[in-house]
Amino acid sequence: MRVLVVNVNTTAAMTEAIARQARAVAAPGTEIVGLTPSFGAPSVEGNFESYLAALAVMECVRAYPEPYDAVIQAGFGEHGREGLQELLTVPVVDITDAAASMAMLLGRSYSVITTLDRAVPLIEDRLKLSGLYDRCASVRASGLAVLDLESAPRLASEAIVAQARIAVETDRAEVLCLGCGGMAGLDAEVRAATGVPVVDGVSAAVALAESLVRLGLKTSKIRTYAPPLSKTLLRWPPT
Amino acid sequence: MRVLVVNVNTTAAMTEAIARQARAVAAPGTEIVGLTPSFGAPSVEGNFESYLAALAVMECVRAYPEPYDAVIQAGFGEHGREGLQELLTVPVVDITDAAASMAMLLGRSYSVITTLDRAVPLIEDRLKLSGLYDRCASVRASGLAVLDLESAPRLASEAIVAQARIAVETDRAEVLCLGCGGMAGLDAEVRAATGVPVVDGVSAAVALAESLVRLGLKTSKIRTYAPPLSKTLLRWPPT
Amino acid sequence: MRVLVVNVNTTAAMTEAIARQARAVAAPGTEIVGLTPSFGAPSVEGNFESYLAALAVMECVRAYPEPYDAVIQAGFGEHGREGLQELLTVPVVDITDAAASMAMLLGRSYSVITTLDRAVPLIEDRLKLSGLYDRCASVRASGLAVLDLESAPRLASEAIVAQARIAVETDRAEVLCLGCGGMAGLDAEVRAATGVPVVDGVSAAVALAESLVRLGLKTSKIRTYAPPLSKTLLRWPPT
Amino acid sequence: MRVLVVNVNTTAAMTEAIARQARAVAAPGTEIVGLTPSFGAPSVEGNFESYLAALAVMECVRAYPEPYDAVIQAGFGEHGREGLQELLTVPVVDITDAAASMAMLLGRSYSVITTLDRAVPLIEDRLKLSGLYDRCASVRASGLAVLDLESAPRLASEAIVAQARIAVETDRAEVLCLGCGGMAGLDAEVRAATGVPVVDGVSAAVALAESLVRLGLKTSKIRTYAPPLSKTLLRWPPT
Amino acid sequence: MRVLVVNVNTTAAMTEAIARQARAVAAPGTEIVGLTPSFGAPSVEGNFESYLAALAVMECVRAYPEPYDAVIQAGFGEHGREGLQELLTVPVVDITDAAASMAMLLGRSYSVITTLDRAVPLIEDRLKLSGLYDRCASVRASGLAVLDLESAPRLASEAIVAQARIAVETDRAEVLCLGCGGMAGLDAEVRAATGVPVVDGVSAAVALAESLVRLGLKTSKIRTYAPPLSKTLLRWPPT
Amino acid sequence: MRVLVVNVNTTAAMTEAIARQARAVAAPGTEIVGLTPSFGAPSVEGNFESYLAALAVMECVRAYPEPYDAVIQAGFGEHGREGLQELLTVPVVDITDAAASMAMLLGRSYSVITTLDRAVPLIEDRLKLSGLYDRCASVRASGLAVLDLESAPRLASEAIVAQARIAVETDRAEVLCLGCGGMAGLDAEVRAATGVPVVDGVSAAVALAESLVRLGLKTSKIRTYAPPLSKTLLRWPPT
Repeated sequence: MRVLVVNVNTTAAMTEAIARQARAVAAPGTEIVGLTPSFGAPSVEGNFESYLAALAVMECVRAYPEPYDAVIQAGFGEHGREGLQELLTVPVVDITDAAASMAMLLGRSYSVITTLDRAVPLIEDRLKLSGLYDRCASVRASGLAVLDLESAPRLASEAIVAQARIAVETDRAEVLCLGCGGMAGLDAEVRAATGVPVVDGVSAAVALAESLVRLGLKTSKIRTYAPPLSKTLLRWPPT
Repeated sequence: MRVLVVNVNTTAAMTEAIARQARAVAAPGTEIVGLTPSFGAPSVEGNFESYLAALAVMECVRAYPEPYDAVIQAGFGEHGREGLQELLTVPVVDITDAAASMAMLLGRSYSVITTLDRAVPLIEDRLKLSGLYDRCASVRASGLAVLDLESAPRLASEAIVAQARIAVETDRAEVLCLGCGGMAGLDAEVRAATGVPVVDGVSAAVALAESLVRLGLKTSKIRTYAPPLSKTLLRWPPT
Repeated sequence: MRVLVVNVNTTAAMTEAIARQARAVAAPGTEIVGLTPSFGAPSVEGNFESYLAALAVMECVRAYPEPYDAVIQAGFGEHGREGLQELLTVPVVDITDAAASMAMLLGRSYSVITTLDRAVPLIEDRLKLSGLYDRCASVRASGLAVLDLESAPRLASEAIVAQARIAVETDRAEVLCLGCGGMAGLDAEVRAATGVPVVDGVSAAVALAESLVRLGLKTSKIRTYAPPLSKTLLRWPPT
Repeated sequence: MRVLVVNVNTTAAMTEAIARQARAVAAPGTEIVGLTPSFGAPSVEGNFESYLAALAVMECVRAYPEPYDAVIQAGFGEHGREGLQELLTVPVVDITDAAASMAMLLGRSYSVITTLDRAVPLIEDRLKLSGLYDRCASVRASGLAVLDLESAPRLASEAIVAQARIAVETDRAEVLCLGCGGMAGLDAEVRAATGVPVVDGVSAAVALAESLVRLGLKTSKIRTYAPPLSKTLLRWPPT
Repeated sequence: MRVLVVNVNTTAAMTEAIARQARAVAAPGTEIVGLTPSFGAPSVEGNFESYLAALAVMECVRAYPEPYDAVIQAGFGEHGREGLQELLTVPVVDITDAAASMAMLLGRSYSVITTLDRAVPLIEDRLKLSGLYDRCASVRASGLAVLDLESAPRLASEAIVAQARIAVETDRAEVLCLGCGGMAGLDAEVRAATGVPVVDGVSAAVALAESLVRLGLKTSKIRTYAPPLSKTLLRWPPT
Repeated sequence: MRVLVVNVNTTAAMTEAIARQARAVAAPGTEIVGLTPSFGAPSVEGNFESYLAALAVMECVRAYPEPYDAVIQAGFGEHGREGLQELLTVPVVDITDAAASMAMLLGRSYSVITTLDRAVPLIEDRLKLSGLYDRCASVRASGLAVLDLESAPRLASEAIVAQARIAVETDRAEVLCLGCGGMAGLDAEVRAATGVPVVDGVSAAVALAESLVRLGLKTSKIRTYAPPLSKTLLRWPPT
């Protein structure tokens, strides 16, 4: 099967890292296609950039030729999943939902460790709307930006581990989710430091997308995610 | 003061109708400026179109020259309000939040009467994230599309009144909200048919925006709605 | 229009301060009438006094000759608003609801800073019943009594600012509400100390009451706030 | 022990009926004292009358000479319990809380059958604030007034049984609570008609009050129900 | 009346202590029968042991000859109450529910102080399913095991008092529940240290069970707790 | 990998059917081992039988020789998953959680169609504790018993389809879950009748268990699911 893994920002190196992580966990026979949006921000931090990413991801997928079997939106806590589900018939898995769903199978409560403080409310809102917030112990920010994960990896991982420890000890999290597509490689370190399972959203999303495809399950088209009505859009998509 | 009232679709006639309603309730000295997005759908029905509208509204406002004192997003249950709040320092009022806030001052529970069934989940989600859902008795759809409000007004109003009656009698709503920017003129008819107060979101938003301006209150910039970080966006905005 | 602003305690000087604040924000053409209950406590702190105030406010308003266009109950977190809504046809705005409603337009979460610790549960309960608690980050007490606001203003404002800072930094409030009718003048100081918008309930209530009147909206009389049945009351009101 | 059972309305015959019911279930050695407020409404239906009753009950108890061991507020869904708890050191049991607490020991969900439709929101609000609403399947109104229970008993009981059946069959209630102090005698009939346990609030409150006294448990005075501060009240209580 | 008080573990000395506490508060004429399961763990700490206790309690009660009037399950936060309610027609009272129900009559919020940290989630889950969690301020663990209450009573009580103080001061609990059947004797000490009422679950359960019996109330058999269908069980009960 | 799929009842034919369904969806290389408890009920319907099944499943797994990689508890809405998670280090997936988790990826709300009415509260409680209830539109019963699925397949499937239609049309479910391990084969028929995706819990659990194993994720052992303390159990397990 072919699974599109769509980065939410325009940084091709990050798309590559995400796709690499996806391939590392994909089943034999799964082809992972990493896609980078053709417009947007080099990293997505905040609501405006997230809304922009939502549209960019949708257009990026619409521009990609069929066939493919599933789509993964590889931004943690970003807008847009509902739009993709409307546009497509194949299953769509957001890495936020994927991480939380998997985490809830492993412990009674989970925390998310993300980058900037301003990402916290976005992640909380996504989890609430997805109905996955009830067992969320906390969403914590390391204080470092998305691109610091590449440029200052040691500093970034230390800050993440520090918050992870607080999540486990103070917030009583029993499982941790890495709350940024770019944190994929850090799971072993965080697990070693805290002793609890660590879920990477990209990996979880690949497994869930493959599962849905294998079980023949697709997005329900009966109401919320019915295809858009046929309309002539004004000046969209951008040329 | 000057208040921008931004339509979410590209139908200029609807912008005019919304602006007319806004002017009808604005205080003396308030200048209402109606804005129509330069890209998007002629009516917004569903998630993809709503995400597109979110971006189009943001760009529409960004392209408009300062100064202005407040911005109203005139789409019921649409995405994007958080992005506008991030981009601007003046207050932003979404007509969904405005209608619900006002309705809650008038009765113990309220219902929203909207157009298509597929709008119901979008409205519910906005109200949940805005923290205004707890006293929502129901969100009901008339089954008619946004543009039917113009093209088949009698049919549309009958369908709306029918759902309004069910909301009051069965769902126990004590106040009703008109759940579409284009329903503004129907409040008298719905009130007459049901005997309960009817809140039009555009009118409510104008009054709230004026109130915030007069009280000198602006969007909090401390966390969720802090300005976007300075970044070079790729191919955005579209030219 | 004429708006009655009813103090909940019997201290005329506090009524004057509240009316002054109301007049400072009222639109031209709005007449603010400050009313002091004819029985009750000199300051309202706790449930018994609050229940007493509820009745005193109702009788105070009933004794005032019509016409008037709206009524504001100027006690933060006090009982009685539902009773006023039942007795009157004009809109009723409680300053607790007004502050929270306005705050929710300005940020993702708000905190209330009040006087004594024992006021905290009362405020929380009012916000819960009003359906405005979901985005409340915290209700914090400064530890100083209502009348200390007059007698020891410096001490009072320092204690309020200290709690305001904790609300913003620890509880993650993005907006603050002043949780006592007598705190009206402190908004500038608290805003300066914390950098977030500060909502005064009296000011917010004036703006909302004026808005409702201008939009022609009145309390729903269909169920919860239907007028009392006609009955002969025993020994009430007191002579 | 001596337990005060305070009616919320001024109808002495109803006080007598309530006290009779209380005595029927009281343990040997428990003296039941029925009290009728000295001011207020002949029946309590709605918020104004309920707030008036709250004060009248408090003054009625304050005027009664000590010693006594517990106080029961015998109005279903009425205001005031928190005030009584503040004024007294002995335990206070509201029949609303008592009925719901007992019902929850007997089945997974319970419904309340009350009199007028306007009583429904009051009861719901009391149960919410008391933290006993989570397992409430519904609050249903028979449509008959409090005093109809005396004047038209056959009609009243038929209407109550009809709603009880709907509660069990449609709302999936497993236990029923009689939602009015005056319904005490109807439990056998409603149980026979529905096959589920029926809890009378007055009976439940007597048992709970006796239990608290026997266990030596009293109202917590540490915060919410601390005694009122010492103050000179203006023109209160009425002479 | 005869009330069975069933220990959840196999330690007969603990059954004795529980029965002693039950007898100390039982009304004259109530016969307390302490029962010890014939299989299971010497102390119940964690989910496996709790599930085992659930079955052991059910079999223990089934093996006891009728007649009896009520059954108390004397384990705090353990599984099984729903099963007992299904098997029996007499009322069943779990000490977890009993303690919380009583605590909620005495203050606005309550905390539970239990033994090991791993008991916290079990207790929270029971309270949630019982609909009694809304006003729970916290469940705190002393860190000492069930059997330490016997073997190291001084250490145990100090650890309990320490957590009780935090519950009152930090979590704002107004009432405390002793969260282990073996803590019964500690209520006076904890009350003295904190100044708030302390509810022992065994005592509360005795009073509630007696109350239900006196009021003639039994478990609803209409749906959730209907008797098991008639079936031949394989190799059960164990011989 | 080897995955144990444990039936909750003692009917070997049902174990076979479940294992067959599991094998039909398992990845190449996954060995499915169907296990039947050695004690318990031939079908599990109600709380007592469910608690009995919980223990029987735990003992059944404990008696099975290692190594194996994951365990699936194949009873819908049954007790015991927390106990298994405590006893094992490999991941445990309950089919209730699996079905709901998968359903939530496919639509905004889901309903469960189960067998007897008495199963409804059990399923609701499991979903609540698992934090997966927020988007549950309804749990509906077909009225037919577990074993009717085998003995009267036509009648059973008609009753299931009838409830499925109501769930979609009235309860607004967008996805359906088959709420009984024995319903596995009915998904195509229900999907054809309703037009929405249908999730079979056994299939979903196999995919999720395989996913967890492939990602190297195991149950968190830090608190709730820490291994039982070392103790000598009395007369357990039964010989």
